[in-house]
Amino acid sequence: MEKYIFSLRMKVRDYECDLQGIVNNANYQHYTEHTRHEFLLAHGVSFAALHDQGIDCVVARINMQFKVPLRSGEEFDSCLWLKKDGIKFVFMQDIFRASDHKLVLRAQVDTVCIVNGRLSDCQQLNETFAEFL
Amino acid sequence: MEKYIFSLRMKVRDYECDLQGIVNNANYQHYTEHTRHEFLLAHGVSFAALHDQGIDCVVARINMQFKVPLRSGEEFDSCLWLKKDGIKFVFMQDIFRASDHKLVLRAQVDTVCIVNGRLSDCQQLNETFAEFL
Amino acid sequence: MEKYIFSLRMKVRDYECDLQGIVNNANYQHYTEHTRHEFLLAHGVSFAALHDQGIDCVVARINMQFKVPLRSGEEFDSCLWLKKDGIKFVFMQDIFRASDHKLVLRAQVDTVCIVNGRLSDCQQLNETFAEFL
Amino acid sequence: MEKYIFSLRMKVRDYECDLQGIVNNANYQHYTEHTRHEFLLAHGVSFAALHDQGIDCVVARINMQFKVPLRSGEEFDSCLWLKKDGIKFVFMQDIFRASDHKLVLRAQVDTVCIVNGRLSDCQQLNETFAEFL
Repeated sequence: MEKYIFSLRMKVRDYECDLQGIVNNANYQHYTEHTRHEFLLAHGVSFAALHDQGIDCVVARINMQFKVPLRSGEEFDSCLWLKKDGIKFVFMQDIFRASDHKLVLRAQVDTVCIVNGRLSDCQQLNETFAEFL
Repeated sequence: MEKYIFSLRMKVRDYECDLQGIVNNANYQHYTEHTRHEFLLAHGVSFAALHDQGIDCVVARINMQFKVPLRSGEEFDSCLWLKKDGIKFVFMQDIFRASDHKLVLRAQVDTVCIVNGRLSDCQQLNETFAEFL
Repeated sequence: MEKYIFSLRMKVRDYECDLQGIVNNANYQHYTEHTRHEFLLAHGVSFAALHDQGIDCVVARINMQFKVPLRSGEEFDSCLWLKKDGIKFVFMQDIFRASDHKLVLRAQVDTVCIVNGRLSDCQQLNETFAEFL
Repeated sequence: MEKYIFSLRMKVRDYECDLQGIVNNANYQHYTEHTRHEFLLAHGVSFAALHDQGIDCVVARINMQFKVPLRSGEEFDSCLWLKKDGIKFVFMQDIFRASDHKLVLRAQVDTVCIVNGRLSDCQQLNETFAEFL
């Protein structure tokens, strides 16, 4: 797992499970979003503060493969690394079940920045993440 | 049901059900919020537009009695009436299962307005809802 | 839009919007799930009843392109068509803003059936949807 | 804070904030539910396992006072104590903002047990929580 640059331990909350008794798929999108935002915060960047400055990071495309479902009470590690593709920041995000390290979710999330209403390359994020690109 | 001044027909969505196979309680709060906001819209008032004008309607207190749980695919009627109590707008909100008119939820929701950051009486809402008070 | 075989008119609920003032991405997954389940119901198949019979339809892979964000109060049409690919049912799902028919979301959702705990071809669904495949 | 018997440190996730930039009220219900379930787990009781045994703990009534709104990235302590009232377990739940210990939410949650479809006193929970009653 050497390529990951950030990892967040989380735990399934019962309200995230649906009538099949497994985590509803939309919650994996929440998990991956929260992981990206915590990664930003760990580098001094706040998603909410960016918004107040007129910079909105938005998801342009998401691709998720669901491998093994998480269930009530299970812990998991939400890991990511990133790369730059043109003006896009592409987050490679994997979730592993903590108990046995099984791959739960493999996701690719393409994000772009809207600066003052226009699709733009975001210098602030380029500088912050230069070390990882 | 004569006292109700607004009613919205809705239908349970499967992702709103939890591992017990019934609608998760927090979703009733969503249902009542959406009903209030649709009631506002029906009278020309947008919750989002109010926010952009510096007027935030917020819930100060909520009291909910859960009578009968809703299940996958069930339709329901979300009804409300309101009264004024000092500067508070108090929404009396009941939800009935459509198939048999059984009471699902009885809620009282006390709301207040924050105008430019200060708790205030909101003249715009007072005028809009004068006919109901 | 001739290839769509099902369409559902929905409306953004304010609690689905996040601090950017637009619908949070995970809710599009909810919208597409609800559309599939309503499509099933329209053909006499209940997702919840399938679960009770030991048949779980699960999403194996999802690919979503976010084109234009939906905002508070906007209506939209959630449309789908489907195809079979091996044992997978592949749902092609597009969401259009009602006011101007702009494409909001383009999604491909690959689903499989787990019958009594085993990945299986589901005869019940094959028969129900034979006319569309 | 001596009367609390359980406390859980949590952090606001951005997707829990709505277009007002504050945590949407329904999420406080999620926070209090998750806190109760973690409290149960800390005493060897799983909400999901109870359901599989035919025991459903459900909320009969909830009363929430919203004092100070939580915002993006804020940490908070979700605390509870409980008492018995007839067959009801009554959870007294308070949420405090971690940075300044301000009271965010004061809630009373009345819960009952449905055992094999019938409202019942639940011996298992009575024994587990005898020390606190």
